[in-house]
Order: sequence, then C-alpha cells, then structure tokens
Amino acid sequence: MTEIPHRQLTHDPNRLRDIAHVGPIELFTPVLEETRDFFVDLMALTEVDRDGDSVYLHAWDDYQGYTIRLVQREQAGIGCTFLRAASPAALEREVADIEASGFGRGWVDDVRGLGRTYLFDDPDGHPMGIYWDVEKYVPMDDAPSLKNQAAKFPGRGANVRRLDHVNYLTREVPAVSDFLRDTLGARCTERIVTDEGADAAIWFSVGQKSYDLVYTKDWTGANGRLHHIAFATDTREDILRACDVFLDAGVHIETGPHKHAIQQTFFLYVWEPGGNRIELCNAGARLILDPDWQTVNWTSAERAKGQAWGLKTIESFHTHGTPVIEGV
Amino acid sequence: MTEIPHRQLTHDPNRLRDIAHVGPIELFTPVLEETRDFFVDLMALTEVDRDGDSVYLHAWDDYQGYTIRLVQREQAGIGCTFLRAASPAALEREVADIEASGFGRGWVDDVRGLGRTYLFDDPDGHPMGIYWDVEKYVPMDDAPSLKNQAAKFPGRGANVRRLDHVNYLTREVPAVSDFLRDTLGARCTERIVTDEGADAAIWFSVGQKSYDLVYTKDWTGANGRLHHIAFATDTREDILRACDVFLDAGVHIETGPHKHAIQQTFFLYVWEPGGNRIELCNAGARLILDPDWQTVNWTSAERAKGQAWGLKTIESFHTHGTPVIEGV
Amino acid sequence: MTEIPHRQLTHDPNRLRDIAHVGPIELFTPVLEETRDFFVDLMALTEVDRDGDSVYLHAWDDYQGYTIRLVQREQAGIGCTFLRAASPAALEREVADIEASGFGRGWVDDVRGLGRTYLFDDPDGHPMGIYWDVEKYVPMDDAPSLKNQAAKFPGRGANVRRLDHVNYLTREVPAVSDFLRDTLGARCTERIVTDEGADAAIWFSVGQKSYDLVYTKDWTGANGRLHHIAFATDTREDILRACDVFLDAGVHIETGPHKHAIQQTFFLYVWEPGGNRIELCNAGARLILDPDWQTVNWTSAERAKGQAWGLKTIESFHTHGTPVIEGV
Amino acid sequence: MTEIPHRQLTHDPNRLRDIAHVGPIELFTPVLEETRDFFVDLMALTEVDRDGDSVYLHAWDDYQGYTIRLVQREQAGIGCTFLRAASPAALEREVADIEASGFGRGWVDDVRGLGRTYLFDDPDGHPMGIYWDVEKYVPMDDAPSLKNQAAKFPGRGANVRRLDHVNYLTREVPAVSDFLRDTLGARCTERIVTDEGADAAIWFSVGQKSYDLVYTKDWTGANGRLHHIAFATDTREDILRACDVFLDAGVHIETGPHKHAIQQTFFLYVWEPGGNRIELCNAGARLILDPDWQTVNWTSAERAKGQAWGLKTIESFHTHGTPVIEGV
Repeated sequence: MTEIPHRQLTHDPNRLRDIAHVGPIELFTPVLEETRDFFVDLMALTEVDRDGDSVYLHAWDDYQGYTIRLVQREQAGIGCTFLRAASPAALEREVADIEASGFGRGWVDDVRGLGRTYLFDDPDGHPMGIYWDVEKYVPMDDAPSLKNQAAKFPGRGANVRRLDHVNYLTREVPAVSDFLRDTLGARCTERIVTDEGADAAIWFSVGQKSYDLVYTKDWTGANGRLHHIAFATDTREDILRACDVFLDAGVHIETGPHKHAIQQTFFLYVWEPGGNRIELCNAGARLILDPDWQTVNWTSAERAKGQAWGLKTIESFHTHGTPVIEGV
Repeated sequence: MTEIPHRQLTHDPNRLRDIAHVGPIELFTPVLEETRDFFVDLMALTEVDRDGDSVYLHAWDDYQGYTIRLVQREQAGIGCTFLRAASPAALEREVADIEASGFGRGWVDDVRGLGRTYLFDDPDGHPMGIYWDVEKYVPMDDAPSLKNQAAKFPGRGANVRRLDHVNYLTREVPAVSDFLRDTLGARCTERIVTDEGADAAIWFSVGQKSYDLVYTKDWTGANGRLHHIAFATDTREDILRACDVFLDAGVHIETGPHKHAIQQTFFLYVWEPGGNRIELCNAGARLILDPDWQTVNWTSAERAKGQAWGLKTIESFHTHGTPVIEGV
Repeated sequence: MTEIPHRQLTHDPNRLRDIAHVGPIELFTPVLEETRDFFVDLMALTEVDRDGDSVYLHAWDDYQGYTIRLVQREQAGIGCTFLRAASPAALEREVADIEASGFGRGWVDDVRGLGRTYLFDDPDGHPMGIYWDVEKYVPMDDAPSLKNQAAKFPGRGANVRRLDHVNYLTREVPAVSDFLRDTLGARCTERIVTDEGADAAIWFSVGQKSYDLVYTKDWTGANGRLHHIAFATDTREDILRACDVFLDAGVHIETGPHKHAIQQTFFLYVWEPGGNRIELCNAGARLILDPDWQTVNWTSAERAKGQAWGLKTIESFHTHGTPVIEGV
Repeated sequence: MTEIPHRQLTHDPNRLRDIAHVGPIELFTPVLEETRDFFVDLMALTEVDRDGDSVYLHAWDDYQGYTIRLVQREQAGIGCTFLRAASPAALEREVADIEASGFGRGWVDDVRGLGRTYLFDDPDGHPMGIYWDVEKYVPMDDAPSLKNQAAKFPGRGANVRRLDHVNYLTREVPAVSDFLRDTLGARCTERIVTDEGADAAIWFSVGQKSYDLVYTKDWTGANGRLHHIAFATDTREDILRACDVFLDAGVHIETGPHKHAIQQTFFLYVWEPGGNRIELCNAGARLILDPDWQTVNWTSAERAKGQAWGLKTIESFHTHGTPVIEGV
C-alpha cells in the first residue's frame, strides 16, 4: 500500500512546551438553567458562583476556581477557551509568539478567577486566552477528606473529575494545525487525512495527555463552531453508570459507549439541554510519554472500519455542531 | 493545630522540565527464570530478548524496545534506572547540571536499545542514566490491530500497560530531594514529614503524572536499596482480577487492594519470586495539571488514619526492602 | 490431614424449596432521621412512606413496595424479617411445618404492604414472618425508562440495587441450622466449623443466590442480635465508588473493600449512624446452580489465612453487634 | 395507548420448578480445532477431554465435568441441550410430563459425564435431555486456592465463569412457549410481541436468573437452528477487556458492547471461527426474585428505540443463524 503524500507534521523536539493545560472554558446555551442542572445533577459539577447571565461550575478535582462558565446566549456554542501557561516565563514567550503570529488581541485583567490574561483568536476565529496567575479552588461546604483533592467526591451521576479536551470545528484545518504547533508549541499526536492527503481532523497535545485541543473540518464551511467538549471520568464504569442516569433523565445519548480507534478513548456522547455535544471520556492509563511521538495518520480506509470494536460512526456526528446552522 | 516548620520544597516554576519519563529499568533477581515467568505469565509482559544473565521484557504499550531488564544476581534489588530526556537540548542541559552536581559518571554508548547515555548516581548511590535516542518497539508476532499502540493487547493476568514509577529506599531523604529538584528539575508533589519536621518520604513528578520517582527513608541505614517498582493498569478491575490470578498462582500478596491516601493511587503489592516488591497501580484520571502545584505535606497524625479507606499500613511495608538485609 | 468429624448438614434434594427470598426487613435505630439520610443520600434508597416512628425505604430494583422499614428504638438491632413464600401452596406447607416446630406465633393481616402473614421466631428468638400476597412497587416520580425495572436508576452513592442477605448473631448455631433446613427448607452452602467440630457460622440459601440467611455464634451469649444486613450492588466499582462517598461523608468504614474467602463475595462494611453494621456486596456471576451442592466446611486453620486476598479479619468484626451489649 | 390483545402467558405459581439449570450443551462446528482454540485461548475455558470428533471444554466455575462438547460437523449449529432436574423426584415428574407431551424419545445412559438421561425434542426439533446424576468437576492441574470454586481462576481473555443461556431459532414461537411453560415448568419473564399480537421472541427462566432458554422466530422458516449461546462474566469490565482481546485476535465482533433493553443484560456478540454466534453477558445483581413475576411484553414501537442506551439492532442479528441457510 502506498502511503499518502500528506503534509508532514513533524515537530521540533527542542521547542519548549509552554502550555500546561486547557481550561477553564466558556460554554453558551440558550437554556441556562437547564444546562446548569444537567451539569450539576447528572455530571456532578458544583455551582460555585453566578452573575448576570452566567453560572460558574466546578468539577470536583479541578484545582482552579471554576471549570466552565455557562453563558446565556441565543445560540449554543463555545465562548473563550483559556489556556494556562506552563510558567511565568512561558507566558511571556507565548505572548510574544502569538503577537508575532498576528492573532493577538491584547491583555485584559478582568477575567473572573484568572490573573492578567492575553486574549487572541485561533486562525478559525475561536476566542482564546492565556494566563499564569489563577485563583485556586477554595472549598466551601465541599471540603474533601483527603487534602490532595480539590473538593469532596460527589459520587453522583457521571461524577466527572475534570475537563479533558475541546473539539472545535474549523473551516480550514492546516492553518489551525500550523498555529497550534508553531505558535502554541502543541504537538499533533494523531490525525485523519483524506485520500487526497488533506488534514480532516487533528488531535494536539500540550502535555502528557494524548490530546487537549482537537479540530475537525467544519462541513458547513462556517467558522468558530464547536464539535464537543469532553470531561474525564476515573473509570469506564463511571461512563456505563452515566448511561443509565442519562437514560432515566431523558438526555439524548448520541452514540456510545464504545472505544475510539483514534486515541483509544472509551467514550459516550450526549447532548446537553442547550444542544452542545458533551463527551464523557476515559483513557485508562494511556499517556503519551514519548517526547518524540510521531503523528499517527489515519486514512479513510482505516476509518471505514468504524470505531475500535466495530461501531459505525453515527451520522449526526458529521452533521451536528453548535451553533446549529439551519439548512446546511 | 500548628503547622510543622519543615523544610520548604518550593520549586521555581520557570525551571525547565527536562526529563520526559522513567524507564527502562534494571531489576536484579536471584531466580531469573521464576521472575521472568512471573512477569510474563501473570503481569502480561513479553520476553523480547535475552543475553548472558539477562532477560529483556516489554509491557504492551511501552513505546520503547523494552521496559525492564531482569538480571541474575545473588540478591534482589534495583539496578540502573534510565531516564529519557525531554529533548536533545534538555539532555545537554541535564548532563551539565549533573556534572556540576558532582554525581556524574560519564557517557556510555553500550546500553541495549538506548543511544548515547550519560550515567550518574543519585545521592544515595542508586545508579541512573539519562538519554535521548532510543530504539522504539518493533512488534514481532505481537503487532496490534490499532496502530497507535505499541503491541498487541495481551488480556491476561494483571495486563499491565506500562511501567509507572520506582520507589527507592534512601539513607537520607533531604540530599536526594535537593538533587531531584535542583539537578533533575523534578517537582515534589507530596511528602511525609515527621513530627520533627524531617522528610520521611518524597514523591517527585517529572511530567503530568502525579509521581515518577519516590524515595522513602531506609530504616536500616543502608544505601541503594529498593522499596518497590510499580506498573500501571488501565482499570481498578485489572487489579482486582490480578488478585485472583496471584491467589491461584501462589504469589505472596502483601497488602491491598486499597486506595492510598497519599497520591490516591488504587494499589496492590505483591512480591515477585526473587523477593522484589511489585506494585500494581491505577490513578484513574488523576493528573497534576497545575504547573505550580504546592507540595502536600502529610503528618504522622494524618498517617495514623491509615490508607484512604482506613486500611492500616502493613508491618512488612516498613521492614522489607531489596536487597534484604538480614538481622536488621 | 484428618477431616474434622463435624455434624453433617446433608439436605434432602427432594425437599421442596418453599421460600422465594428474604425481605422486607425491619431495622431499629436510635437516630431515625440520621439513619434515614444514610440510606437515602449514600445508599440511594428512596423514602416511600412514613408513619409514627417508622420510615419505609425502597431500593431501586426491589419489586416490592418497600425494602426496609426503619423503626425508632432506644437501641439499634434487627426487627422482623419477612420471607416471601415461593407460591400459595408453599405458604401453606411452610406454615404447617412452622406450626409443627413449635416456633409459630400465628397469622396477622396488618403488616404494611404484605397480605396475610404468618409470624414466628427463629430458635434464637429473631422475629420472622412468611407471606405470599404483597403490594408491588408503584413508582411515583421515580418511574424508570425501562419497564422491566422497579424504579428509576438513582446513580448516586453506593447505588444499591436490592437487599441481599441478613447475618444474625445467635446463642446456639445448631438449633438454628436444623430449623433452617428442616422447617424452612433452606440449604447450607458454606459453614465455619471449630476445631471441636462445632458450627460457628452457617450460610443458608433459599434459592440460587449462594446465601440469604446467615447465622454467626454470638460471643456474648445473648439472643436475637444482628451482625449485619447486606445490600447488593451491580458492580465492584459501585463499592469502590461508595468508599470515597463514605470517606467524605464521615461514615465509619469498618473493613474492606476486599473479597471474602467464604462465598467469595466482594465486600465493604460500614456502620450506619444508628450503629448497625451494613455490608455492600457483589457476587459477580456466582450462583449456586447445583441443586445438590454439598456444604463447604471451613476450618479454623483455613480461616487463619484471612480473607481471599489475605486481609486479616478486623477485631471489631468479632465484638460489634446490635444491640450493643456494654461491658461484654 | 391500547394494549395489544396478545396471548396471555400467565403461569400457575403452584407449578413446581423442576429444572435446576441449563447445561452442558453440544455445539457443532466445521472447524473443530479453531473453535476449540477460540474457547480456550480467548474465552478461558479448559480442554478436559476429547474423543473421536469431539472436544470437551470446561468453564472455570462450572461444577459439572464439562460445559460444552464441541463436535466436528459439516455445518455449525446447536446439538443437544442437557437440562439438570431440580431433584430426583423432579426428574420423574418431568419425564412423565414430557412423555405425556408426545415429544419424548426415551432414556439413554451413555451421555458422557451424566447419569441416566431422558432424551426429547422441543416442539421445533432441537434435541434435549434431562438428567439428575452428574459427574462433578475434578480439577487436574487447575485446582483452585478457594475450595468453593470449581477450578483455578484463569484470568485470561473473556474469562467467562459459566454458561448462561441458549437462544434458539424456531419456526413457530407459540408451540415452544406452551411446551416450556406447561411441560418444563419454566416461566416467561419477558417477550417481544408483534403488532398483530403474535409472539416474536420469548425469554424463559427456570430459576432465579432472569432467563435460561430463549426462542426467537426463525425468519427463514427452518427448524432446529441456533441464534446464539451465552456465557456469563463476573463484570462488565471482563467484557470490555474481551473486546480488545477479540480485536487483536481477529475475531468478528458483531455488535456491542451495550446494554439490552430487554432483560437489561450488558452484552457483546462475536462469531466463533465455526460461525456460531457467541454472547458474553453480565446481568449485574439483577435476579428475578419475584415468584409471581408477570411477563413483560415489548412492542415493536418500544423495540424501535433500539437497545437500552440507543444502539440500533444490527442487521445481521436478523439474518445470521446456524446452520447458515444459503440464499434465504
């Protein structure tokens, strides 16, 4: 079999890894209270604050003050994604790189819970910010017994431990891919390439998790949309238990539970009441420890086999994103 | 309660993190073939090579050519621990730092499967080496179906995915602690402090796993000994299944399964036929994503509560190390 | 090794199995509301009714109207255990046998949710009742999505599916053993025998579960006390999750999680706020399908090995029962 | 919604339950050694004997001498299903009933491992036998550590504990249904009814497991075929682990893992090398303890929702049975 002559995504191993992780993020919903209840009652996040049209939610082992800010908007979708720099020096290096890229928007100091934050857009127009200083989580009535844990173990519903990754839709994949590698210093661990050698989806990692930022080509040609956000559970059993919880709560289970061939994540996809797709994911003990990991390229022939254990990818996975674009 | 005035272990967040991960390692055993069978039949490693008095074993998702080298010796214990640098430049920086520390021993180029390797000792005398170039695993008859995995999924026994960490015994903890932080650039995520404020055990992390290198004070006053090496499983259920496998294989189960309060790892400890203590561990989705994580200090009063769910620490945990020192 | 000449417990395979299952039961507590909250918040039962000094609780897949009746009393302990007959004809046969045994107390028709019920005592004085007609569970706001399930899946805490068994303390084991076999038609699947050949504990089954009614010799010489009641979870992971829930709720975890050698149950023991010992148990797919199963006898030498994976039996397991007898 | 006026399946609760369980069974395969390797290497059964064109396999906690007899035949399919009577008296009652039904074929005494066995056919022509005396399993080199277990815990692959049920195809469902209830004394726990009120599939239980014998209408109009046989695992995690094992062994995974709406079983379906469909199943702690359980009837509208968590039933589930009938 001849290998497809696709773009190489080789990274420079000496490039410093200046982003520590993804989060917090903003999520838009047209039904704020219903979305809030979904996350609190079924996903086991805690409401930690609210102001104006926003509710701040915290996942039980997030060391930061909040994990998601839900924002009332006419349409569902993703707001700003905040990235924590790996160090004060890393923040300076990153801001210089972003400014040089032309995607920078400047410093602000009014993001709740974060220190001075430099805002920018990714090449597809998704708003982002990078920061170093952050208010850490201070438990109220949810103090944990074990002091190496952010908050009390909720033990309800999907019981998600933390935010895991964001999967964005993008009009063009290559420009984003270059930006992630060259400007943000992230590394592409896996990728879908079309028969023509084009990138159709890319999975980038900023640390040792196998991915943190994912981009999929938007079939509508629109910009700035969301495919899904994902939360990590401690076990696959948490996900199986969540299935029964979602079933009885009337939540739309889109597909799963099953295991992805790409990245091998055990997954479940549901739609929260506002329409955003939410993934529950568990990677087991899989990490990308190799600092020189070479991008794994998946062809359409390989994709045709379905997920790891044979499940076919569901149609709506290729047609539903937020905000929803009618008639496309 | 007054806080104990123990040594501060604050790290400099701008210090580059120049070690990618731990492994491969050398393990000594007086009963080479029995130890080999333990790892192959019950832990699900694969024998990939042997020469002279050594057997090379590979865990199914280790991207490197081998995970452990078993070496026939009169006494059990730990041989050399190899650390992979985070990049070629990181290797140069680390070697400069190690040489400056006075613990360096010089370059060699004959370690199986590794490129040019710089050897050194930790302050307690455990031999170590650091390298960048490495031969990656090439499956023979164990090619996996999913190409983002190192080898075929064995599905037997404890089915360990990869090496997780090494827990060394050391005569003095503080010197090692300084070396790990200042020379190796690792970070202390958790620690046991005595009522007098001294370090009794330290857990250091080189990446986003919550720990990679652990040192516990050696009650015998000896140098260079091993407390245990640990392997990661994908699920807690893998560990529960392993319990039944070990029971029927006549393996000594020392303690567990249970959950550590420190680091929250779900664990099982057994002794391999050569006498080395082996841990199976699962961390769920717990990672240390905070690049500015402050060391968690555990006091003896907190330790007296036992493990997370109340199990008392077993006596032999404080008396058994390898090599065994008779009469101490 | 010479086999101990203990009492034989052979059953007559032609003896009809006239009891279908155990439950509902009554549990006494000096702190009714705290005990109620333990069962509702942490075990995932639902309060379905209350009257006077009683609260009725329902486990989510119990087909009957309630699973336990909590009763406010000065001291913790077990009240009446109700047994459902296997058929109307079986009820008549059982009542005739019980009356013949001299332990009968007569018919009543005022037990909540049950039809005509024949009351009796076991030989140790624990009150019991047997019935055929029963009000089945009718969901209120907890209707399940799947109509082959009694109520909605709660997905919180230990999430117990149903009552599993009761373990009573008894002054004399043999008399109880004969009554269970000869009068109730239950079968002894496993047993602890002392070095003198006496029965120290007996596990009796009424159907295909490996045990339903357990009696342990009461070290105090008292009558009518309780060792523990047990609830079944669907998975071992439910029990592991419950450990973290109990830890953060301040519940006393007495011992576990671990696996019993006897009956092989994966277990956790906690004390509810009223002081009664509660077990969470999971048997996997283990059933006693053999209608001619021969009692497994465990000697003290075998018991000395501890539980299946080596855990030593905790001291309080031999000293705590309810009601608590001071000074014994 | 008007209820469909389908056949009532009410059982007489006083009818004695004279069958203890299903098994052993005979399975036909055109590739005896490959089928044997599938069961031994991947399912964790043990080869205990072979003669002529047969191999006898034992699941690790089957108390009987063997679980399946594999028989070399030109075509895959099911051979004789043996049922153990609940007692010697039950055997006599059952044989009288079967003889009265006209489906009896008479006594034989040459079935391996079984005592005197009465042979008969179900109304669709599947051969069956009923017996009381049986040779229990005697471990060779697979003696378990715990003496309440039939054999050593294998800890490999799907690690199935025991046979669970058989799902037959039948030309006509009602005749089989009457035979199961009236002659064998089994009870219909769940059922699929067509919009016309006809039975399309029936799940019958002989004890407290929710089903043991299942019949599905054969779309080809043929007799005596097999839909699948199922083996029980202790955990859902065993099934998830098996998925990866099957993936790497090249076994055809037909559908799953997922949870059935009917009977709520967590399932995986694969095809063994001979073409027979094999299910791995886990029921959690679900049992039918109610001796007066009323048949749950599933309509085509309910079936259209897919499995419990929304998976659509795979097409081949309605087209593949063994022996395969070409061109239908």
